[in-house]
Amino acid sequence: MTLRPKLHEVSRVAGVSLATVSRVLNAKPGVASETRQKVLATLADLGYREPVQSARTGVVAIVTPELDNPIFPALAQTIEARLARYGLLTMVCPATSDTVGEQEYLDHFAETRAAGVVVVNGRYAAFDIGFDSYVQLMRRSIPVVLVNAVAGECPVPAVAVDIASGGEMAVHHLANMGHTRIGVLVGPRRYTSTLQLLEGYETAMAGLGLAVDDDQVSETLFTVEGGRAGVAKLIEAGVTGVICGGDLMALGAIEGLRARRLDTPADMSVVGFDGTDLISHTDPPLTSIRQPVDRMAASVAWLLRNQDSAETAATGVHLFQPDLVIGRTTGRVPV
Amino acid sequence: MTLRPKLHEVSRVAGVSLATVSRVLNAKPGVASETRQKVLATLADLGYREPVQSARTGVVAIVTPELDNPIFPALAQTIEARLARYGLLTMVCPATSDTVGEQEYLDHFAETRAAGVVVVNGRYAAFDIGFDSYVQLMRRSIPVVLVNAVAGECPVPAVAVDIASGGEMAVHHLANMGHTRIGVLVGPRRYTSTLQLLEGYETAMAGLGLAVDDDQVSETLFTVEGGRAGVAKLIEAGVTGVICGGDLMALGAIEGLRARRLDTPADMSVVGFDGTDLISHTDPPLTSIRQPVDRMAASVAWLLRNQDSAETAATGVHLFQPDLVIGRTTGRVPV
Repeated sequence: MTLRPKLHEVSRVAGVSLATVSRVLNAKPGVASETRQKVLATLADLGYREPVQSARTGVVAIVTPELDNPIFPALAQTIEARLARYGLLTMVCPATSDTVGEQEYLDHFAETRAAGVVVVNGRYAAFDIGFDSYVQLMRRSIPVVLVNAVAGECPVPAVAVDIASGGEMAVHHLANMGHTRIGVLVGPRRYTSTLQLLEGYETAMAGLGLAVDDDQVSETLFTVEGGRAGVAKLIEAGVTGVICGGDLMALGAIEGLRARRLDTPADMSVVGFDGTDLISHTDPPLTSIRQPVDRMAASVAWLLRNQDSAETAATGVHLFQPDLVIGRTTGRVPV
Repeated sequence: MTLRPKLHEVSRVAGVSLATVSRVLNAKPGVASETRQKVLATLADLGYREPVQSARTGVVAIVTPELDNPIFPALAQTIEARLARYGLLTMVCPATSDTVGEQEYLDHFAETRAAGVVVVNGRYAAFDIGFDSYVQLMRRSIPVVLVNAVAGECPVPAVAVDIASGGEMAVHHLANMGHTRIGVLVGPRRYTSTLQLLEGYETAMAGLGLAVDDDQVSETLFTVEGGRAGVAKLIEAGVTGVICGGDLMALGAIEGLRARRLDTPADMSVVGFDGTDLISHTDPPLTSIRQPVDRMAASVAWLLRNQDSAETAATGVHLFQPDLVIGRTTGRVPV
C-alpha cells in the first residue's frame, strides 16, 4: 500500500485539496477545525493506518503577564487543561515590557493562524488602550477571549472575576469584626481593575455609613515591593484593616508592617486578592478574595470554541463571583 | 515605490528565494536564523522601509511540567527574558499526563521548525526513558537544551543544578546544629533527581560517620500532599531533621508535622529544594537549597543559540552549584 494514491482518494472523498490532507496528516496549522475533523473521519473510513502525527486540531495561545505572580500560571494551567479536552495544543506566552510584548505575540498567532488567542490581564487592562488589536484578530477569524480587568462595554468575549463585588465582601468581613478605619492598597489607577476595586470598596463603605478619606487609599505596584512601600501611608492614617489588589501586594503589606514591628492581624488586618494555593502556606495564612479559576477556565474554553465569527461572538464581560477565603491575617479591630 | 519589484531585488541581492523574503517580512516560521538575518540586512541596505511585522528571528518552546510548582514558571520566565535578548519569541508549553503530553509539543515544534526547544524536567527525568526524542529533534537541526534531572552521559546539551551537592550541603547544615538522625523525603526512585539527592545525602552521612537506615528515607510524590503523607514515616523513625526533594514537598511536611501537633523546627527541622521567591513568605520562612535560576537561564540561552548542528553541539550536563538559603525551618536538634 503506497501513500500517494491514498491521499488523492482522501482528498476526493473528503472534498478538500491534497494540500489540506497533507496539512492534517502533518499536524500543520491553517486548517479549520471542521475541515480537519472531516479529513480525519475520511482517513478512518478509508482504513488509513499511517500514524497521524497529532490529533490536535489547532494551537491556542494564552498571552499572560509575567509568570512570577502565581495567579497567572494558575489561570494558564487551568485553561490549558480545559482546552486539551477540545483537542487543542496550548502555548503560554509571557508578555512583558522588558522582553517580548503582547502585540508581538498577537502578530505571530495571527500569521500562524492560531485556533484561538486568550489574553489574560493584557494591555487592554489599562483603560486608555482599547480593544482594537483583539477586534482585528477576530475579524481575521481568530477567536479571542479576554480574561480579567475588562470593563462592561467590551467588544470581545471576556471572562472576569467581579472585583467590585470582592471589594464589597472584604469591607463587610472587616466591618463585621469592628473595623471602621478600613483602607485599600491598589494598583495604578490607569488599570480597570483598580477602579473596580475602589468602586466596590467605596460602595460598601458608603452603605455602612463609614467615611473614606484620601489617606485611606494607597496607590502602589502589584508586587511584594509595592505592598511593602504602599502600606506605610495606611499605617500613618491609622487604618486597622486593609484590602489589597493582589496577594503578592498583601504579602508585601505584611512585611511592611513587620518591618515596623507591627503584627498581622493584631495591629492591622490584611485581605489579599486572587487566592491561589500559595495563601494557605503564607505566614500567617492569608485571608483573600479568591478567583473561581476552574469555573472561569471552563467558560474561557467554551467561549473560544463557540466563536464562529466576529459578528456573532458572545461579546461583553461574563462576570464571576469571587469567594472570601478566611485565613489568619484578619481579626478583630485592635482596642 | 511599489513593493513587488523591491522584493525581487531583495531576493536577488540576498541570494534567497522570493518566498523566503516574503516569509521573513511576514514573520513566518521556516526560515533559518542566518538566512533571516541576511534578508533583514539586505532589506535595510536597500532602504526598505515597509514595517517588518516582527523583528523576532524565531520561536523557542519551553516545555515544562505543570505550572503549579513555582519553580517551573520561575525557570520559564527567566529563560524567556534571556532568549528575548537574542530576538527570540518564547512559548511556554505545560506538558502534563492529563492534558497534552511532551511528545505532542515536540512534534508540533519539529513540524513548525522552531528555532529551539528547551525541555525542563521532561520525560527524560525518568532514567528509563532515554533521550531519543531530543536527539531526533537535533538531527532535524532544531537546537535542544534540557534543564535539570539529567544524568552525566547525556547526548544533548543540558543545564542542571547539582542536586547531590545540594543534598550534601543540607546534611552538613543539619549536622552542624547537632542533628544525627537526619532523613530524606524524596520523589519516586525512577527519577534521576531522586537518585542524585539520595547520593548526596548518603555521601555526606557516610563522611560524617552517621548511619542511614531504610526508615530514614521516605519515598513520596513531589507535591504538598506527598510531603504531608511522606513525613509520617520519618516521625515514626525518630528523625529530627529532614531534607526534601522540593519546596512544595517541604511545605507539605511542615503541614504533616503540624497536624500531629509537632513544631518546625522545634520538633523537626525541614529543608526544602528549589528556593523560589515563595520561600520567604511561607510559615515559617523555609530553609531551602536554591537553584541559581538566573545563571542557569543564561547558560540555557547560550547553549541554544550556539548549537550549530547535532554533531558539534556541546552535549553533556553543565552543572550549577546551588546555594543554601537559611530560613527559620531549621534549628538545633531537640534535646
